[in-house]
Amino acid sequence: MSADAAHARKLRIVQAAHSKPGRFRDAHITMAHGAGGSSTQTLIEGLLLPTLQGERLAELADAGTMALAGGTLAISTDSFVVKPIRFPGGSIGELAVNGTVNDLAVCGARACALTLSMILEEGLDAVELRAEVTAVAASAERAEVEVISGDTKVVERGHADGMYICTTGVGLVDARARLSTAGLTPGDHVLVSGPVGSHGMAIMLARGQFSIEAPIESDTAPLWPAVDALLDAAGPDVHCMRDATRGGVASALNELARASLVGVVIHETDVPVEAAVSAAAELLGIDPLYVANEGRLLAFVAPTSAGAALAALRAVPGCERATDIGEVVAEPEGMVLVDPGFGGRRVLDMLAGDPLPRIC
Amino acid sequence: MSADAAHARKLRIVQAAHSKPGRFRDAHITMAHGAGGSSTQTLIEGLLLPTLQGERLAELADAGTMALAGGTLAISTDSFVVKPIRFPGGSIGELAVNGTVNDLAVCGARACALTLSMILEEGLDAVELRAEVTAVAASAERAEVEVISGDTKVVERGHADGMYICTTGVGLVDARARLSTAGLTPGDHVLVSGPVGSHGMAIMLARGQFSIEAPIESDTAPLWPAVDALLDAAGPDVHCMRDATRGGVASALNELARASLVGVVIHETDVPVEAAVSAAAELLGIDPLYVANEGRLLAFVAPTSAGAALAALRAVPGCERATDIGEVVAEPEGMVLVDPGFGGRRVLDMLAGDPLPRIC
Repeated sequence: MSADAAHARKLRIVQAAHSKPGRFRDAHITMAHGAGGSSTQTLIEGLLLPTLQGERLAELADAGTMALAGGTLAISTDSFVVKPIRFPGGSIGELAVNGTVNDLAVCGARACALTLSMILEEGLDAVELRAEVTAVAASAERAEVEVISGDTKVVERGHADGMYICTTGVGLVDARARLSTAGLTPGDHVLVSGPVGSHGMAIMLARGQFSIEAPIESDTAPLWPAVDALLDAAGPDVHCMRDATRGGVASALNELARASLVGVVIHETDVPVEAAVSAAAELLGIDPLYVANEGRLLAFVAPTSAGAALAALRAVPGCERATDIGEVVAEPEGMVLVDPGFGGRRVLDMLAGDPLPRIC
Repeated sequence: MSADAAHARKLRIVQAAHSKPGRFRDAHITMAHGAGGSSTQTLIEGLLLPTLQGERLAELADAGTMALAGGTLAISTDSFVVKPIRFPGGSIGELAVNGTVNDLAVCGARACALTLSMILEEGLDAVELRAEVTAVAASAERAEVEVISGDTKVVERGHADGMYICTTGVGLVDARARLSTAGLTPGDHVLVSGPVGSHGMAIMLARGQFSIEAPIESDTAPLWPAVDALLDAAGPDVHCMRDATRGGVASALNELARASLVGVVIHETDVPVEAAVSAAAELLGIDPLYVANEGRLLAFVAPTSAGAALAALRAVPGCERATDIGEVVAEPEGMVLVDPGFGGRRVLDMLAGDPLPRIC
C-alpha cells in the first residue's frame, strides 16, 4: 500500500496546487454530462467527489482500490428503479446503499466498499440529483462503508425515470458466520427482525393511486447491526439469513424452503405488522407477507440458540419488535404453510405476477 | 472455504434431487419478471444460471463469494446504455464485460469476479435477452472472469431502451504494477494499443442517421493481455494506463495531463486510425481523437523502456498496430497539444458537449 499511499498524497498535493475544479452549477442534467468530456468532469469533481468524499474515490482512476487481508470475499450487486424516487422514510439513494449492504450482511459479510453507478435522465433537476448523492453519502456513513468507485451515464428524456442506481458492495465474510441458503434444518426457529410490509406499502401509498392516507414509512435501514448481534449470540447456530425484499417474506421463505428441501410453518398471528400497514393492506386486499421490506431480515436459528438470538436481536435499535414467527419442518419439502391461529393450515406460495411493481 | 464447499456440494445434491427448475419459455419480459416471485425465479433458474454457469452464482444467495489471498483489491463499476444494443463487432452484453474488466486492467488488476445487474424494459423480446446473456457469458469466458452475483429489475415499456446493464468487476492489483493517474512524467512516451475511434464510429453508423455505409466494426475487446504484456516488458516503468472510452483519446489525455500536472504532445500523423473510420470521420466533421474506443488503451512509459513496451504490445493479438504517438512534457501544465506534422501546434481540449451520445 505504500505506493498507493504515495499516489494519494501526490494527488492531494496536485489537487491543492491545481486550479480548483469547476463547481457543479447546472440546473439540469444534459446529455453532455454523460459524454465523458468537460461536463462529465464538472459533475464528478463539482458534485460527486465533494459529496461522497472518499479518499480512494478522489483518485479518479478507472477503479477504486483497497488493501485486504485474505479471506472469503462476498460481493453483491443491485439495481434500483424505485418509483417515486423519494418516499416517506427514504429515497432511492438511501435504498441503493442499504439494499446492497444488506445483501452482504445476510451472507455474514460486513460491507467495506461500495461502488455507485447512476443512469440519469436528461432534464433531471440538479436539486434532485444533489439530494440523492447526499442520501448515498449519508447512508454509506451510517452503514460505515466507503464509496470507492463510480460511473454516470445519461439517457435521453423519457428513457429513464429521473434516475436508476446500481450499487455493488464488497465485504469479507465474518469468521462467526456459517450461513447457507441450503442451511435450513428441521427444528430451526424462524425469526423476523421487525414489522413486515412497511416499505412496499409506503411506496404504494406514495404513488397516490389510492386515496388512502396513512402514516406509513419505509423500513429501509442497514442490517449489519442485527446480523452482528445474531452472530454474537448464536454463531454457527444461525443457519441462514435472508432480507425479505421483493416478493416479501412469503417469497423469501419459499426460495429457502426449496433450496433446503424442507418445509416452513409460519404462525400468522405472531407476524409483526404495523397497525397502519395492516389496515392499508386489508383495504387493498394484499397480504403483508408478500409486501417488500428493505430493512427486515429472516433468520433461521437452531432451537437451542433461538431464545438467545431473539433477545440479542431485540436489543438492536430498530429491531425491538423482532419476533419468533415459525419453525422449519421436515415436510412438506419445499413448501411454506401458514397457521392462521384458528385451526387448519394454508399454503403460502411464492409471489405470482407483480401487484406492486418497482418498489426498489 | 470448507463450509462453503460443503454448501456448494449440498446445493448440487439438492438441485439434482429437486424437481428441475422451470425453463424460461416466455416470449417477452413482463413486469412480473422483476417482482421477485415465481416469474423472477424462472428467469434466473431457467435462463441466467444455465447460461452464465457460475458455480458460485448457482448458490442463489444474496451475494457471491470467493476465497482471496491478501493484497490490494481493485473494484470498478460501469453502466451500459449503448444504443442500439447490437452493432457491428459487438453488443451491449459484450461491452458490459469488456468495459469493466478493462477498467480493472488499466489499473493493473486482472478481473477475477464480475457482477451483472440488468434493468430490462417490459416487452423486451426474450430472444434479445437470451442473446445478451449469452454474449455476457462468452465475453466473461474470453476474459477469464466468473460472473458470481447478479440482479434483474424490470421497468415499464418505454422507461428504458430494451436493456441497461451494470457490471462491477473485482480483481487483485498485479505485483508488477506501479500505476497512477498522477504518474505521468516528462519524457514518458505515449503508446496507443491500436487504431482509434472504431467503436464510436461503428455505433454512429449503426444508428443509420447518416447515409454512410462503411465496413467499420467496434474495437470492443478485453485489454488484460495488452496490460500483461506491458507490465512484463516494462514493469514499474509503465507509469499510467488508461482505456480511452467516452470522450476518446483526447479526453483521456486531458484528464491525465491535469491529474499529473504535465503537458502531453501528440503527433497527429502517427495516430493509427482505420481508413474507413478516418473517411467517415472526415465526412462527418469529427476528429477521431474524440471518438470512443472500447478495446484501446493508452500507456505512459519511461523512455528507457518505451521501445521494449511497444514491441511487447505489438506481439499481442489485436494490438499489431500499436504505436508510439507522443510524449509527456513538463509544460504547459495540464494541457494536450497536437503536432499536425506540418509545423505549429494546436490545443486538443477535452470533449465539450456530446456529439455521440450513448456509445457505451
